[in-house]
Amino acid sequence: MWDLLFTNVHLATMVDGYGEVRDGAIAVKDGQIAWLGRMDQLPAGVQAASVQDGAGCWLTPGLIDCHTHIVHAGNRSDEFEARLNGATYEDIARAGGGIMSTVRATRAASEDELLQASLPRLRSLLAEGVTTLEIKSGYGLTQASEAAMLRVARRIGRELPVDVVTTFLGAHAVPPEFAGRADDYVDAVCAMMAPLAGEGLIDAVDAFCERIGFTPAQTERVFAAAKALGLPGKLHAEQLSDLAGAALVARYQGLSADHLEHLSASGIAAMAAAGTVAVLLPGAYYFLRDTNPPPVAGLRAAGVAMAVATDCNPGTSPMTSLLLAMNMVCTLWRLTPLEALAGCTRHAARALGRSDRIGTLEVGKQADFALWRIARPADLSYAIGHNPCCGVVQRGVLRVVLCSEQI
Amino acid sequence: MWDLLFTNVHLATMVDGYGEVRDGAIAVKDGQIAWLGRMDQLPAGVQAASVQDGAGCWLTPGLIDCHTHIVHAGNRSDEFEARLNGATYEDIARAGGGIMSTVRATRAASEDELLQASLPRLRSLLAEGVTTLEIKSGYGLTQASEAAMLRVARRIGRELPVDVVTTFLGAHAVPPEFAGRADDYVDAVCAMMAPLAGEGLIDAVDAFCERIGFTPAQTERVFAAAKALGLPGKLHAEQLSDLAGAALVARYQGLSADHLEHLSASGIAAMAAAGTVAVLLPGAYYFLRDTNPPPVAGLRAAGVAMAVATDCNPGTSPMTSLLLAMNMVCTLWRLTPLEALAGCTRHAARALGRSDRIGTLEVGKQADFALWRIARPADLSYAIGHNPCCGVVQRGVLRVVLCSEQI
Ligand SMILES: [Zn+2]
Ligand SMILES: [Zn+2]
Repeated sequence: MWDLLFTNVHLATMVDGYGEVRDGAIAVKDGQIAWLGRMDQLPAGVQAASVQDGAGCWLTPGLIDCHTHIVHAGNRSDEFEARLNGATYEDIARAGGGIMSTVRATRAASEDELLQASLPRLRSLLAEGVTTLEIKSGYGLTQASEAAMLRVARRIGRELPVDVVTTFLGAHAVPPEFAGRADDYVDAVCAMMAPLAGEGLIDAVDAFCERIGFTPAQTERVFAAAKALGLPGKLHAEQLSDLAGAALVARYQGLSADHLEHLSASGIAAMAAAGTVAVLLPGAYYFLRDTNPPPVAGLRAAGVAMAVATDCNPGTSPMTSLLLAMNMVCTLWRLTPLEALAGCTRHAARALGRSDRIGTLEVGKQADFALWRIARPADLSYAIGHNPCCGVVQRGVLRVVLCSEQI
Repeated sequence: MWDLLFTNVHLATMVDGYGEVRDGAIAVKDGQIAWLGRMDQLPAGVQAASVQDGAGCWLTPGLIDCHTHIVHAGNRSDEFEARLNGATYEDIARAGGGIMSTVRATRAASEDELLQASLPRLRSLLAEGVTTLEIKSGYGLTQASEAAMLRVARRIGRELPVDVVTTFLGAHAVPPEFAGRADDYVDAVCAMMAPLAGEGLIDAVDAFCERIGFTPAQTERVFAAAKALGLPGKLHAEQLSDLAGAALVARYQGLSADHLEHLSASGIAAMAAAGTVAVLLPGAYYFLRDTNPPPVAGLRAAGVAMAVATDCNPGTSPMTSLLLAMNMVCTLWRLTPLEALAGCTRHAARALGRSDRIGTLEVGKQADFALWRIARPADLSYAIGHNPCCGVVQRGVLRVVLCSEQI
């Protein structure tokens, strides 16, 4: 007796390419995938508590947004408008803008307010079939405020139909109270880690390794502290310049190096050797009008897994559509639609260290999947600003009821 | 006695800049705006059949997408995928792809099928507060099939909560049966016009004036035929090269010249003198990875009104989000958020010859408006892939009920 059976769907299992199973079915039991295959091979005599007619929809693994800063207060549309009206970055900094305006707003917000502020962004992502979401801290920059951000992230995972992976990004920026004392701030970040981990708030540790962020030496201290606690590393690396951050995170057996517009050949080789995932973030590239794409052909040739994420954040990627990120990596960086979809499923799972549970449709994996009113999987990358999602199952629970007239 | 009163809203009337009225209200009577102003100036004693609490939302004119090819059958995600896997344009043309694949699919579809195929795209636009939509023909390229497309467009205007403006684009491409006989096909296009107009199917006439389309001389024959029927012109002009199409449409007192990436200074001057609107289409620029932006600063300096549209079409702009087009003109071309919003309201109305009825919030105009859960109007251009629309009134009828918990 299964809990749920979807019939009359085309499956893209994402095991080995699209892993297409046309005219298929998929069954759920106890929140896991219990069976999948062709309709005409459905085992005789098995019953399901609920049978849903997929009406010819495509069914993929639930999407995974593996790099977001979605929990924050305030927004920066005022700066966006001021810049387009001629204000310089200096004007905006003088007026208290930039990342510190988000830090001020986030510190001032209660946990309830942080959750409320994040909900519209979360709803956008979840409406597109996202079933797992990474959320970083990094706008608190004090023990208490980083904890608040991470608690809100955990609460999202409990209260919304989405799995949340939390990443501690204390080393996001040097807060004003440590101005000119970045090394002291790194000490503080390392000291925050154990208590936050003790409260169960950290799944991974990240840093912003950049000329305008933290040096490789400071980043390595953060990674060493994480390693001592058994926490895996991730890194904002090579976005604006090449500081060999990707090789550093690879050396620490980190999960992923993210951005990578200025990644070198030796960085690619180090990532390939260590199995570090490349997380591509086209939203920031687009929003900042960057012209230096990440070395996609080199990553592909070296066999580095490429994930794709929104980088949802108020300063450089106010983006809440993972489908649009898929279109952008294809349009701007010439990934194929298959690579884009694998980047939001199979490889995104790897970037979060969860390949064993999510990212593909396989018997025994968590029953997270999305249904789409599309002609073929490539439609997900091709369309710009269209959401064809017509149903989502997360941990075995159907959350948008299929409406057959709409299919 | 008013039919509908929205209280507790911030109005962006789009009369003279944003035309902000904070803590405002707006009243509807017989499908028109009957009153608007500050809450504390609401006339005493007036009643409304329905009073809606806007809960602090912003309220703008309904959005106007003034350039779309939204009615068509088939899609071209297969070509998108093939190209990203290395197929050349020649490979695709040999395999029957390109615009002719859309023409074949559209000719083969019944009017019901054309409507069904267009509905998901229409729903995306309407969900974002679009209340007026231009729809072009141009994938039929025979009298009967062009008529079918335009009848479906009219039917959309009757059956969906949106006003439709139809544009006859017979001169979109030379169909295979006229291969090598473009001038003969232009004769056929001119001959189609009177019967289509007689059936009430044409509000404006457009052409694709381009080296790979129709020459200025051929375009002028189309405009002359339109003028004889009293139909205004529009033109796909200066997208890929400068054929002085903008000056041509200006000479015919046309409504708009659209695309304009290669517009010259003399073209700007001609448009400014004639009052021709510049319709900016960032979706095609983005999708084709064009690097030559339209001369926004020159248009601005000359006082040419700039409209913004999706150009929704399967070949070069498979885009169904007008909000994303607003973000793109700001991000890619440095329009201000105010210019972007004016481009989808006030100036888009001009591009359709409907400034007298729509495009701004003014007493006596059609009661078309959208409500937004945003902090300020610039949020509409700033966010990428987020739809904060929480209510739409079209011809005085509220079509998405406000849910106060969601605000
Ligand atoms: Zn980031
Ligand atoms: Zn067009």
